[in-house]
Amino acid sequence: MFDNMTERLSSWLTAEGAEAGIVLSSRVRLARNIKGLSFPPYADDDCREKVVDFVETALQKSRELERGEFHRSEIIDDLDRSFLIERHLISPEFMRPDTISGIFISPDEKIAIMVNEEDHLRIQSMGSGLTLTDTLARAMRIDDDLARTLEFDYDTDFGFLTSCPTNVGTGLRASILIHLAGLVLTKEIDSVIDHITKLGLVVRGFYGEGSDVWGNLFQISNQTTLGRSESDITEALQKITRQIIEFENQAREQLVSQAQDEISDKIWRAYGILRHARVLTTEEVMNLLSAVRLGIALEILNEVSMEAVNKMLILSQPAHLQKHVGRVLSPSDRDIARATLVRETLA
Amino acid sequence: MFDNMTERLSSWLTAEGAEAGIVLSSRVRLARNIKGLSFPPYADDDCREKVVDFVETALQKSRELERGEFHRSEIIDDLDRSFLIERHLISPEFMRPDTISGIFISPDEKIAIMVNEEDHLRIQSMGSGLTLTDTLARAMRIDDDLARTLEFDYDTDFGFLTSCPTNVGTGLRASILIHLAGLVLTKEIDSVIDHITKLGLVVRGFYGEGSDVWGNLFQISNQTTLGRSESDITEALQKITRQIIEFENQAREQLVSQAQDEISDKIWRAYGILRHARVLTTEEVMNLLSAVRLGIALEILNEVSMEAVNKMLILSQPAHLQKHVGRVLSPSDRDIARATLVRETLA
Repeated sequence: MFDNMTERLSSWLTAEGAEAGIVLSSRVRLARNIKGLSFPPYADDDCREKVVDFVETALQKSRELERGEFHRSEIIDDLDRSFLIERHLISPEFMRPDTISGIFISPDEKIAIMVNEEDHLRIQSMGSGLTLTDTLARAMRIDDDLARTLEFDYDTDFGFLTSCPTNVGTGLRASILIHLAGLVLTKEIDSVIDHITKLGLVVRGFYGEGSDVWGNLFQISNQTTLGRSESDITEALQKITRQIIEFENQAREQLVSQAQDEISDKIWRAYGILRHARVLTTEEVMNLLSAVRLGIALEILNEVSMEAVNKMLILSQPAHLQKHVGRVLSPSDRDIARATLVRETLA
Repeated sequence: MFDNMTERLSSWLTAEGAEAGIVLSSRVRLARNIKGLSFPPYADDDCREKVVDFVETALQKSRELERGEFHRSEIIDDLDRSFLIERHLISPEFMRPDTISGIFISPDEKIAIMVNEEDHLRIQSMGSGLTLTDTLARAMRIDDDLARTLEFDYDTDFGFLTSCPTNVGTGLRASILIHLAGLVLTKEIDSVIDHITKLGLVVRGFYGEGSDVWGNLFQISNQTTLGRSESDITEALQKITRQIIEFENQAREQLVSQAQDEISDKIWRAYGILRHARVLTTEEVMNLLSAVRLGIALEILNEVSMEAVNKMLILSQPAHLQKHVGRVLSPSDRDIARATLVRETLA
């Protein structure tokens, strides 16, 4: 499955848009539940089935989503599931075969709707660069559109009701994926994260909750939604992101002015290894691509585009690699295939 | 000084000759002293002066050495001295400005004669690859030739007399410079060195006595000369060298059959770093060149010739670099100039 997507970069990762040298992407997720049906954690199979059916019908009736594909969990195998996780279209524990769930994906992958994740619907909207306003607007359009067919569980006092209390209210989580290589190199990252956390935001790794930070890529998102409007939340995140960008830019300037040779050496070595290595782990690729990404942003290196870096970031992941070569690979064979893919991309 | 030599590879480092994939060069040195003059460690300035004069005259009369140049220590500055050490034409402590000494160098650098080192004459003969027989023959021809003009201190019982008792007899030290990257990678190197040492040979680093092993390059030489003929000594070394080559080849085969991907990755990464780094220390260059040299020998990589590897090995050393750029460089500027030189060579 998903053969048409395998070699393609999602259009929210094209390194376009505001601040694309630092912010890879913006993301807004709305949690919604259908009135009168048990929330997924408490729903039996019949109920879960009903939810999937209802949503599939609503999607077919949607003007916003007339294109795109809906896939039910029973036809998704392990490799496809991993593939969707790697593309950040579904969350890591979602869509196991027996869970009666589904995923809608728009052709440009800027919209992905998980059905029967923690809530009945998780409407995700993604965009390249720092573009939370547009991304939110798109999510709200989808939400409005689906609300014409589906009646969402809404409380006049609390707002939208969700499985987890932290989502009650707008059901909104806004997040950005940001590359903080400068702050990591100047070792200021911990104090910046500390600062962000004190402002009520959550900082995670590339793969979300519980994931390690690889490639100096951080996901920053709001924690709670109750009592705040959608635009309040995204504007607050946008504002803090601009502050973090400022810190990151200062760190980069400091590196260039105080350690030009070292930083340039680090960047070019990373490029040299990517260009020639025969064995590469996912973690190493991400860290080397981080250095190359920094090199492009600092105009130290122009052998490769930011878009190609994003492409390698996604396409070198295990499931993508296996889809690329067309067969299941052992971890060590993946490391070889990954090095080959990266080498060919940079050749 | 030595401007014509700066960018040139010595002709005993051209990666030609027998076993050139493993043995870089062969070297024979004869220690000789002039009868009736105090040995250098005990000689006063007048005596040292006399030795230099005698040798210079003898060199002028030599048919074997009519070409080539003789340089007295007083005109050699620190940079030139370091340059000659890096080219392996003089020993590290030789030719300090006030020592009244001299160095003869043949145009192809296959012959270098140190005057007033530990002995009055140290006739050095060098050749590319494993070529001890030819190298010895060349040294002996020079010796015979000079003996027509100079009367050497010779005892019918002991042979040639020398400052250090280990050299008494033939005054010969034969050595080979050998690249044992395979044995280092398989971690068998210590037991091989142990074996060599038990056979009465000495194992040293690239820069001779007391130097560290960089780039997996080892100098192996005989320890004593008394009671053995010149050809006995060189044949014994040649025989043991063949044995070591056998061990090294076995190690290389083992690496290729058991760890093809790892070894190929290591080699290509080294190449990638050399090709792109902006800062390189001497030690790192030597270690990376070692991997590339192994890659060429194993036919894993053919982007660069063995001769070019040898050239980078020599030309990336501190004094060579400074002569190359035409000015004195701080160690950190040298690391940058070194990376530039290597990058340009590989471009």
